[in-house]
Amino acid sequence: MLKIAVAGASGYAGSEALRLLLAHPGYGKDFEIGSLTGGSNAGNRFGDLVPHLPQLADRVLEDTTRDILVQNDAAILGLPHGVSAALDLPENMYVVDCGADYRLKNESDWDRYYGSEYAGHHTYGIPELPGNRDLIKKSRYIAAPGCFPTGATLAAVPGIAAGLIAPQISVVSVTGVSGAGKKPAVSLLGAETMENARAYNVGKHRHTPEIRQNLQAVVPDNEDVYVTFTPVLAPMKRGILTTVTAPARGSIQDIRKAYEDFCAAEPFLLLLPEGQQPETQSVRGSNMTHIQVEEVDGMVVVTSAIDNLTKGTAGAAVQCLNLMLGWDETAGLPQTGV
Amino acid sequence: MLKIAVAGASGYAGSEALRLLLAHPGYGKDFEIGSLTGGSNAGNRFGDLVPHLPQLADRVLEDTTRDILVQNDAAILGLPHGVSAALDLPENMYVVDCGADYRLKNESDWDRYYGSEYAGHHTYGIPELPGNRDLIKKSRYIAAPGCFPTGATLAAVPGIAAGLIAPQISVVSVTGVSGAGKKPAVSLLGAETMENARAYNVGKHRHTPEIRQNLQAVVPDNEDVYVTFTPVLAPMKRGILTTVTAPARGSIQDIRKAYEDFCAAEPFLLLLPEGQQPETQSVRGSNMTHIQVEEVDGMVVVTSAIDNLTKGTAGAAVQCLNLMLGWDETAGLPQTGV
Amino acid sequence: MLKIAVAGASGYAGSEALRLLLAHPGYGKDFEIGSLTGGSNAGNRFGDLVPHLPQLADRVLEDTTRDILVQNDAAILGLPHGVSAALDLPENMYVVDCGADYRLKNESDWDRYYGSEYAGHHTYGIPELPGNRDLIKKSRYIAAPGCFPTGATLAAVPGIAAGLIAPQISVVSVTGVSGAGKKPAVSLLGAETMENARAYNVGKHRHTPEIRQNLQAVVPDNEDVYVTFTPVLAPMKRGILTTVTAPARGSIQDIRKAYEDFCAAEPFLLLLPEGQQPETQSVRGSNMTHIQVEEVDGMVVVTSAIDNLTKGTAGAAVQCLNLMLGWDETAGLPQTGV
Amino acid sequence: MLKIAVAGASGYAGSEALRLLLAHPGYGKDFEIGSLTGGSNAGNRFGDLVPHLPQLADRVLEDTTRDILVQNDAAILGLPHGVSAALDLPENMYVVDCGADYRLKNESDWDRYYGSEYAGHHTYGIPELPGNRDLIKKSRYIAAPGCFPTGATLAAVPGIAAGLIAPQISVVSVTGVSGAGKKPAVSLLGAETMENARAYNVGKHRHTPEIRQNLQAVVPDNEDVYVTFTPVLAPMKRGILTTVTAPARGSIQDIRKAYEDFCAAEPFLLLLPEGQQPETQSVRGSNMTHIQVEEVDGMVVVTSAIDNLTKGTAGAAVQCLNLMLGWDETAGLPQTGV
Repeated sequence: MLKIAVAGASGYAGSEALRLLLAHPGYGKDFEIGSLTGGSNAGNRFGDLVPHLPQLADRVLEDTTRDILVQNDAAILGLPHGVSAALDLPENMYVVDCGADYRLKNESDWDRYYGSEYAGHHTYGIPELPGNRDLIKKSRYIAAPGCFPTGATLAAVPGIAAGLIAPQISVVSVTGVSGAGKKPAVSLLGAETMENARAYNVGKHRHTPEIRQNLQAVVPDNEDVYVTFTPVLAPMKRGILTTVTAPARGSIQDIRKAYEDFCAAEPFLLLLPEGQQPETQSVRGSNMTHIQVEEVDGMVVVTSAIDNLTKGTAGAAVQCLNLMLGWDETAGLPQTGV
Repeated sequence: MLKIAVAGASGYAGSEALRLLLAHPGYGKDFEIGSLTGGSNAGNRFGDLVPHLPQLADRVLEDTTRDILVQNDAAILGLPHGVSAALDLPENMYVVDCGADYRLKNESDWDRYYGSEYAGHHTYGIPELPGNRDLIKKSRYIAAPGCFPTGATLAAVPGIAAGLIAPQISVVSVTGVSGAGKKPAVSLLGAETMENARAYNVGKHRHTPEIRQNLQAVVPDNEDVYVTFTPVLAPMKRGILTTVTAPARGSIQDIRKAYEDFCAAEPFLLLLPEGQQPETQSVRGSNMTHIQVEEVDGMVVVTSAIDNLTKGTAGAAVQCLNLMLGWDETAGLPQTGV
Repeated sequence: MLKIAVAGASGYAGSEALRLLLAHPGYGKDFEIGSLTGGSNAGNRFGDLVPHLPQLADRVLEDTTRDILVQNDAAILGLPHGVSAALDLPENMYVVDCGADYRLKNESDWDRYYGSEYAGHHTYGIPELPGNRDLIKKSRYIAAPGCFPTGATLAAVPGIAAGLIAPQISVVSVTGVSGAGKKPAVSLLGAETMENARAYNVGKHRHTPEIRQNLQAVVPDNEDVYVTFTPVLAPMKRGILTTVTAPARGSIQDIRKAYEDFCAAEPFLLLLPEGQQPETQSVRGSNMTHIQVEEVDGMVVVTSAIDNLTKGTAGAAVQCLNLMLGWDETAGLPQTGV
Repeated sequence: MLKIAVAGASGYAGSEALRLLLAHPGYGKDFEIGSLTGGSNAGNRFGDLVPHLPQLADRVLEDTTRDILVQNDAAILGLPHGVSAALDLPENMYVVDCGADYRLKNESDWDRYYGSEYAGHHTYGIPELPGNRDLIKKSRYIAAPGCFPTGATLAAVPGIAAGLIAPQISVVSVTGVSGAGKKPAVSLLGAETMENARAYNVGKHRHTPEIRQNLQAVVPDNEDVYVTFTPVLAPMKRGILTTVTAPARGSIQDIRKAYEDFCAAEPFLLLLPEGQQPETQSVRGSNMTHIQVEEVDGMVVVTSAIDNLTKGTAGAAVQCLNLMLGWDETAGLPQTGV
């Protein structure tokens, strides 16, 4: 039985990964929950920090160190940016890193948006990207995608890869507040975020180059990709509703056909029937991406809904782990929303 | 003392107009609250329908008819589309119509987006549009703007009128649920709208031609304006956070200067200091529009925050009424949010 | 393979039952999803009404009639009050009725609180009530409990059954808006329920006699039970946080011991460690009841958290179905919140 | 022209006091806004911290010291507990202290619930308490009431003072999250408080002795008062919905009459018509208390709604300031909700 550790277990990404693992059909059969680690929370009873997972309530958080983590066969890392690179985990472990450390292939993008030392890159954890599923199966270390890039990439790639949407896209993503993590800050208080909408990091958000990188990988003829990305914080716990606006390069019939073809074989992509728009509540707690595509006056608007903590983070992590470990890709990943 | 009627008094637009009128310095001095009318709610005690305005609680709603309304000197109309045109109010009344009936100048726009018989157009109720303030002062019938067009127009006009933002704009507006009005519908239930974000009427929203009309009126050299508009419903009562994305045609310094100049003399426009983003909570219940402008890689992102019921509807109505009646334009209109 | 029908499948109770059944380990092995029925929604594609269950999206809702339902081996009924009694389902079916029709044993209670014709009563669907689990196993028709009575009963019973809490209880339950069902009403609009709290049906709520009945069944020496029940609508989709206040009849140590003993063997009851209060977010989408008990100056305050749609309705229904059909009582019922 | 300072100006109490003062008819005529002070925020531009009050945006926060404050004629203090006592402001200033330091008359209550050194007590700032209005007029230092005690006291006092409600009350108050102040804490994050309800400080909340003190002052024959108080945090920014449950000592007609008489002359108390329940949205941003009273089976349930930041804190402060300074008690205090 494999031991799967979760680092940053009391954070939103870590505890969501644990929720999924506890309901995974392989739990207790193919794997057990290994080390649970924390940063400043190390030493605390897990149930005092995370009351919704009673099965693990009496566990005590260990330190997030290499020594602790190497006692496990696999690990899902829900750590602040920069921490995972410093851990330098051994190559015989299966690792899914939910942080940004190894996502970007272009060092100058890293320098511009992150500024810290560049750590390199690892296989990127969106199996739905053309060719990526096989890479993931052969990998040992996965850079799980950011939540916004997941919603934007899955919305834009089918049309852009088919050459039917111009790669000059404007992305606006409406997100729930858990995306900012579990750190205390006045601007993230309930009293500041309820009954409120505000854009933030306009033109500067670190997920921008990640979206561009994903689209550049699929655009025909290596045409240059332009992305403007604006995140908007909305008063909800979870969920991302992404709108992608871009010039059409084909009829809506052809565009729709491209999305149908792309989604047909994917267990976690659902192109909704015409007229039905994605809603974040429909994918809450599930690993699904709901998608719709409309055309008006020569412009395409693609909308997608994901749960930022599930398909946007921990669900993608489990999906990648399933692939790496040779298990059913969909195991433990709900297709139904709560 | 003038008598000001409010038609559709128990709806969100009507009751917000009454809230503002009750706190207006001219109330009880220059004017009194005249007839309060309703549709299916006529005959009901006002306080049973609208508990937050205790001063008017014992009023009884009258029918929304021409006979009732002509007993007043002025009227604010918060009626379903189509009703105000049928009322055919006399020219000696001062009327601010919060409905869409008389907003569009182009009959083919009306036909495409509304489909019902075209009623014509009246002076448009955004005083901040170049030249419009004087028109309003001389008018007797004002077509108050839609809530989305208010947020998008005030965000885009300063840059577009200055020729510094290309008139090919992508608008995404995140709105509270009161914008849909007080009509029962499953899709507007709290259980459907809380913890949820969804786009709707993508590419088809009736406010699209109104935004285009406003920008076309100010664009230099009568260049064609292209607008893609996507509204997103977010879990909040009130507020619209608009993002406008468009190509830059000047430096961010010049663009910012254009916004500073445009906002400088306007009591209800506030260009925020660099780095501070508009939030809907900051303008809640106020008549303000908070604006920010950013440039990145040749694209401009302008964001604006309004309260859809105040500056987006009833505040604009009172602002226009103030102008028509020769009162201080800002009377009764809060600059502070709640 | 059994066929399990869900009547009222597009309502909140019905669709939650389907969510649980689709993730049930017996799905596709021991049972299949049988008829999905609706009232005014009959004839519609299920996915157009309930987008979060894509596996059933192409099903079409049938009419809620006896003829349709008897084609199934079992049924979960999520119907408006009065409808299930009229269906008169045959005794060879396994039925869990989420409506109130058969909950009350006392006809005069029914007359006072419901007023319609009394239909009788069936085995009550809270397995955790002393002696009730065995009754459920032997039953064919279960009256699933109301959501408020579930939260209040499970909070109060351990202390009252032990004679350590006086049966003069004041219950205040803070509930999410889905408890009111999926029917359009102005008072349930998002614009009315967000950023708002209000009590309703004070002193008149139909769940009051059901709570009293449950406590009367366990109180020592058949002492008379007095219940004051006040529901408060809060701005959340789901969840009930119940507070029960009553005089203590023992030390907090003894009271706590009674709760520990009561909860010890129950898979869906969790007495939290001292100092940790139940939160509805911790049980969201799960079948758990989290409980805490405090004593101050001779009074006991018990708090409980449930998801009104899961343990409060559909989860209880599946739990009862599991018992009736001889399956593992916990099958398909999450202990973890989302 | 008086100078009115606000200490803790960027906190929720302080900025709400400023919102009210800016709209006060005496602003710019009878008084100006004096010093704005902060704790760790001193030195910052006010508009960067509080964007919804643009008139004061360019002010810079000063230190909260005696030297700064004595340069003003009056001060509203929105400070953490313990700070105001240490300031030791001079007797010639008019001070309204929104903190708890001087609220309790009974030192042993202070010791039990606060534990720090007892500072004494000052005139208590609920003008609606029998006899209190005249005391306030003659005072120079007011201890403004806590938000929960305001809602509970105004709900319970009319019935208890009339001897028609037994002084054995169970209070459950559902509160918005701004009541906890603007301090960063994980448990107050939007991601923790949205879609969630939880009780806290059960049996231990510091507002308990304050409620008891208020009721003890009015109970006939000095009968002992018993209060059980349970606060519940609900997902809203502002507002408190209080339920008071207690045995009836008279008919509902007599009880209702007592409430009518009590509220009749009070500008900020509104007994709602029978059948209409208070809602926090109806009093949002106003200084009103909406009240309803019901009787069932010998028990009375009184419900009240206030805005915790207005009538619950800053509105009460301005109301007291008005009284102390000989101004109209209602000046600048909205009776209408937003």
